[in-house]
Amino acid sequence: MLAVKIETGKISVIETPKPRPRKGHALLRLRLAGICNTDIELLRGYYGFAGIPGHEFVADVVSAENPKLIGKRVVGEINLACGKCIYCQKGLGRHCPTRTVLGIVKHPGAFAEYLTLPEENLRLLPDSITDEEAVFTEPVAAACEILEQVRFPKQASVAVLGDGKLGLLIAQVLHLHGLKVELFGRNQNKLSLLQPMGIKATVIDRESPRLPRAAFPFVVDATGSAQGFDSALAMIEPRGTIIMKSTVAERLKVDSANWIVNEITLVGSRCGRFEPALKLLKSKRLLLAPMISGRERLADAPQAFLKAQAPGALKILLYPRT
Amino acid sequence: MLAVKIETGKISVIETPKPRPRKGHALLRLRLAGICNTDIELLRGYYGFAGIPGHEFVADVVSAENPKLIGKRVVGEINLACGKCIYCQKGLGRHCPTRTVLGIVKHPGAFAEYLTLPEENLRLLPDSITDEEAVFTEPVAAACEILEQVRFPKQASVAVLGDGKLGLLIAQVLHLHGLKVELFGRNQNKLSLLQPMGIKATVIDRESPRLPRAAFPFVVDATGSAQGFDSALAMIEPRGTIIMKSTVAERLKVDSANWIVNEITLVGSRCGRFEPALKLLKSKRLLLAPMISGRERLADAPQAFLKAQAPGALKILLYPRT
Repeated sequence: MLAVKIETGKISVIETPKPRPRKGHALLRLRLAGICNTDIELLRGYYGFAGIPGHEFVADVVSAENPKLIGKRVVGEINLACGKCIYCQKGLGRHCPTRTVLGIVKHPGAFAEYLTLPEENLRLLPDSITDEEAVFTEPVAAACEILEQVRFPKQASVAVLGDGKLGLLIAQVLHLHGLKVELFGRNQNKLSLLQPMGIKATVIDRESPRLPRAAFPFVVDATGSAQGFDSALAMIEPRGTIIMKSTVAERLKVDSANWIVNEITLVGSRCGRFEPALKLLKSKRLLLAPMISGRERLADAPQAFLKAQAPGALKILLYPRT
Repeated sequence: MLAVKIETGKISVIETPKPRPRKGHALLRLRLAGICNTDIELLRGYYGFAGIPGHEFVADVVSAENPKLIGKRVVGEINLACGKCIYCQKGLGRHCPTRTVLGIVKHPGAFAEYLTLPEENLRLLPDSITDEEAVFTEPVAAACEILEQVRFPKQASVAVLGDGKLGLLIAQVLHLHGLKVELFGRNQNKLSLLQPMGIKATVIDRESPRLPRAAFPFVVDATGSAQGFDSALAMIEPRGTIIMKSTVAERLKVDSANWIVNEITLVGSRCGRFEPALKLLKSKRLLLAPMISGRERLADAPQAFLKAQAPGALKILLYPRT
């Protein structure tokens, strides 16, 4: 089969044997996949990754122990958990200490014609959710995770920093949850995408960023940059909560005095359960089509990765064959 | 009157006019004061402080607009708030953006024979609380603040890092709240002080610290050092909460990937309301006497500050005259 490979900072397309599913795993045939910023970070050496990347996908089940799954169109939770530890028992397999992660940690990813996942990770897709909607399940779940971690008062004001893919999804999810969202970013085109939903957006000038100081009880940092955290600290009110969605390779330098004197709460937030995301996708209230910047062939993955890194680019989709 | 003065990193004892209280302020005569680590940090140049330090005190009211206060023995909340802004209206004068702070920010402190404070900041002391208990009101309130910010499940396990004054008080307050506290520090003598309460204590070796990894759902960092934060991050479970009580002058370097991937919550925590602290002091359940390392005269403040910085030292008290 065709597969994308990342090794020592290089990306290539290889021919490799079809994976053989382990006990309890299903064999899946890719319908389409999405390139996430994490994939780009993996290419840059984050996690010392070597292997097949990719964790946003829609696929058909080719083989499975559960006959009801065969032939079905699915998405899949990306954490492969042990199922036995205290985290797994609490339904927090995403934090299982011995977990592997599809396309990120020790489990071959979805940028390939075939992949495997534990059957319990699979979620059946209703016909009403299209492939190009379903491929957003994982990042939408990551946005929804915020609502599981933080209790927002009704109509609370939230600043979302970052007009990348995740920032745009977070702004939408929080807006649909009834919060008063203001989106901050550097790219006017990206920011204006959410205008049809009535989400207020403010362009931050790169040279002389004028940030509203101590103005928000909640700030989400989805900038993917270390400066984003400094901006969040400047914008948060005393006793406010900053939700951190940016994993940055470098170490953050934090002014702890500001943070402690003002009693700021910082909440690290990563991926989430698929159920709330699928519910939202089914509701058709998310603006996803304008977030697709391009469709490429799996065989052209190196070019697709370049396009995904271009300024102004949002989601690039990969199709196994076109 | 006699007063302690800190300026450009130097401490001296001066003769200065008795302060004249502003409208709504009471004039207080010092009974005794306590040296806090923040005072030592002020001497080291923290906040660019110049003036009379001191914010832990017990005093007698000499004059006040409210006749019921005159002659009374009091402690006092240290934040002088505007009373009008949104924080003050929410009872969060400690976060009033235009506040001054007794002995810390633009209001002369308690290391003097006389001081002034707004009458609304004063709390009357019942006879059952001695002076040498009452002088702990402010740091006990800082420990109690944690209980106002964080919801702990019943009998949750909490690691308290730091065997300094604040660490010992936090361990006691959380223990008395019914939590399963384990105290970590470097000084066997300090750690053993809380043995009579049944609080488990573990000595951390400075050279080869062996920390229990990902072992606690809650960790309080009261080490006052940047390394304390790294230890807290090593010891916290995924999805756990770290309470930050250490204001460190240098910038913390944070491994954001660890923090975000493990969805850690970091709660900055500073000073608290006096009411819960006075209630605890009245209950006589805190071990305070063993935490007093020395009693000095205000006139000997420079030596007292040296003693407060000696290894193994805990609370040093300052008496105006002995």
